[in-house]
Amino acid sequence: CYECFGGVDCSQVIDNCVIDLDHGDPTMFEEFWFRNAANTITVILGYQRMSYFAQSKHVWFMENELEVQIRELHRVVGNAVTEGRHIVVGTGSTQLFQATLYALTSSDQSKPTNIVSAAPFYSSYPAVTDYLRSALFKWAGDAVEYNLGAEHEEPYIEMVCSPNNPDGRIQHAVVNGTGHVVHDLAYYWPHYTPITGAADHAIMLFTLSKSTGHAGTRIGWAILKDERVAKKMTKFLELNTIGVSHDSQVRATQVIKAVIEGYTSSEPQSGSPQTVAQHSDNNKLFHFGNSVMHYRWKRLREALNGSSAFSIPGFQPSYCTFFQKDIDQTPAFAWLRCKKTADCQAFLKERRIITRSGRHFGAGAEFVRLSMLERNQKFEMLVDRLARVEASRTPD
Amino acid sequence: CYECFGGVDCSQVIDNCVIDLDHGDPTMFEEFWFRNAANTITVILGYQRMSYFAQSKHVWFMENELEVQIRELHRVVGNAVTEGRHIVVGTGSTQLFQATLYALTSSDQSKPTNIVSAAPFYSSYPAVTDYLRSALFKWAGDAVEYNLGAEHEEPYIEMVCSPNNPDGRIQHAVVNGTGHVVHDLAYYWPHYTPITGAADHAIMLFTLSKSTGHAGTRIGWAILKDERVAKKMTKFLELNTIGVSHDSQVRATQVIKAVIEGYTSSEPQSGSPQTVAQHSDNNKLFHFGNSVMHYRWKRLREALNGSSAFSIPGFQPSYCTFFQKDIDQTPAFAWLRCKKTADCQAFLKERRIITRSGRHFGAGAEFVRLSMLERNQKFEMLVDRLARVEASRTPD
Repeated sequence: CYECFGGVDCSQVIDNCVIDLDHGDPTMFEEFWFRNAANTITVILGYQRMSYFAQSKHVWFMENELEVQIRELHRVVGNAVTEGRHIVVGTGSTQLFQATLYALTSSDQSKPTNIVSAAPFYSSYPAVTDYLRSALFKWAGDAVEYNLGAEHEEPYIEMVCSPNNPDGRIQHAVVNGTGHVVHDLAYYWPHYTPITGAADHAIMLFTLSKSTGHAGTRIGWAILKDERVAKKMTKFLELNTIGVSHDSQVRATQVIKAVIEGYTSSEPQSGSPQTVAQHSDNNKLFHFGNSVMHYRWKRLREALNGSSAFSIPGFQPSYCTFFQKDIDQTPAFAWLRCKKTADCQAFLKERRIITRSGRHFGAGAEFVRLSMLERNQKFEMLVDRLARVEASRTPD
Repeated sequence: CYECFGGVDCSQVIDNCVIDLDHGDPTMFEEFWFRNAANTITVILGYQRMSYFAQSKHVWFMENELEVQIRELHRVVGNAVTEGRHIVVGTGSTQLFQATLYALTSSDQSKPTNIVSAAPFYSSYPAVTDYLRSALFKWAGDAVEYNLGAEHEEPYIEMVCSPNNPDGRIQHAVVNGTGHVVHDLAYYWPHYTPITGAADHAIMLFTLSKSTGHAGTRIGWAILKDERVAKKMTKFLELNTIGVSHDSQVRATQVIKAVIEGYTSSEPQSGSPQTVAQHSDNNKLFHFGNSVMHYRWKRLREALNGSSAFSIPGFQPSYCTFFQKDIDQTPAFAWLRCKKTADCQAFLKERRIITRSGRHFGAGAEFVRLSMLERNQKFEMLVDRLARVEASRTPD
């Protein structure tokens, strides 16, 4: 049984169970893939793809068909330019983040390059930058503060996550300098945000985890303008893990192909997220994702409406070129603020809700990040529990 | 077509093609798995294993069934003690090597820990230790020289690869100190060496790549006595790649299970590597591997017998507890010495044979490492070409 469920058929809800929303584990997408099980079976025979290398040693480990499908996916969604760009596949975008730091720095530099990002920033950026205490790069904190100091005369790399993890904001580079900018576009998909154009930055990171929901497959990709950056990132992947699992690449290819087929098969497309429940949209991943996220944010806003305990950010709808109409921002995480308590994470933990404290994101402890991507029942339990917290505190 | 082959059905040999033996790409095992294709099919449905987590968040990313099969494999082969030990799965043993360095050092230490290994040592050890210029660890070269200096009063980690990459020697720790020792047992399988007992060291690394031949799956595992080391290695895997591909873990489970079944099914076992060609041994991986390697070393020794150009190391046979008789050492690499030329790599490159120079292994340029694990035809081409080099030089 999954967490919070028991009984012979796992249908019994364990009311006082711990709801863990610390990670952005995208299990809400299981429902879509369960419904589309027939055309997304990955089969690998014992003797296939045993080599370190893919088709030829020229391309090293990267499976050609995966690259083809990644380019086609971006063409269908319209969220990134891939024509004339280099693609490097990695073991998730976390590995690619490290590969970009390696590619954009040099082994003979005298001081580590400063890595910055506007707060609140993704909690993994500082942790992953600093865990090996590299002399090539070091975490230098909030990009806004960095921009005010004299330090930005030094070499730096600015991480721009947009829509932002943890708070869903649309972001742009803030440091006024000539350093490198890495765009982490993990959440720039129609599930979470209006697509406002094809992104065309020097370095862009994407991941299967937040696009199709296959986090366990550990596949991400970088879209790059500069071939030298692509080559040095590939060198990192060779040193770090001798390439990327070919089984994962095969599965990612299969899954992305199924997403594309949902939008290119002959049946007429409605183009409307509201009709996701209809059978014709059953195989349209972004319609499914946007519909679920829209429902969940509506539920959460209703539950916290007029709340004295919690607040969440508001967003303006924008025109989405993919859905061809205005849609809301429906981020993968809720960036929750506790109005009456200084340690929001501890406050929620007492209520058996595990979240990640704002402190890890360069923000205050009155904030927490909680995943909106969990399985349905767990999300419903969360909303009910947050609503109950509210009610019990109203008399105070 | 594979390298060196062309024509409509890829059966035409391209005589003057480049034979690349730089990597230890274990494609010779394809033949075994092709023969056993029926029971080694990996099937993954679209909605399966989407989460970052395996069965429960307690075990994080590690698939329970893979751990069970790894323990059973070592029991069948008798090459390592696993009872009461912790197992950590990684994205190949290269990632696990880095995880051990992270686990055995501390973020608050004032100087980097010295990493040493007796020369000739695996060329990846220095490269992978130093590419990020970590303040936690740094490459300090040949363990024999290190032992002579006063430096071994400092913290150090000694890598012991046995049988050794590149030269096939059986090795033991050489530094006379109290530092950590990591045993890289990638080649401690009956394909390559007599099994002389169940290894029982504090930290042992193994890899699917050199045991079953599935390099592209990127799965390795560590067997550990200390739970704290296991936990810190797991933390490294979380920071480095947020765990290990679940698709790869599923396939590794399937493949290891098939190896075990080859030795535990009801039919009588011959226990003899000579009988590998017989149908009854068709599904016995180590019989296949040992038979192929035995043939190849015999071929290579015959071709180089009395050679004035090249020499290769000699080995004494030993009793193998797995095959229950004396067998030869048949290493995964040939450690070739050019007798008449100072740069053996360049000498062979002129003859269109790509090898790795001894310089990368802390040895002289008169040595090269070449893979003995390539597909059959490529190996035969290598031997023919080496024999021709010899003949053409004899008149000198």
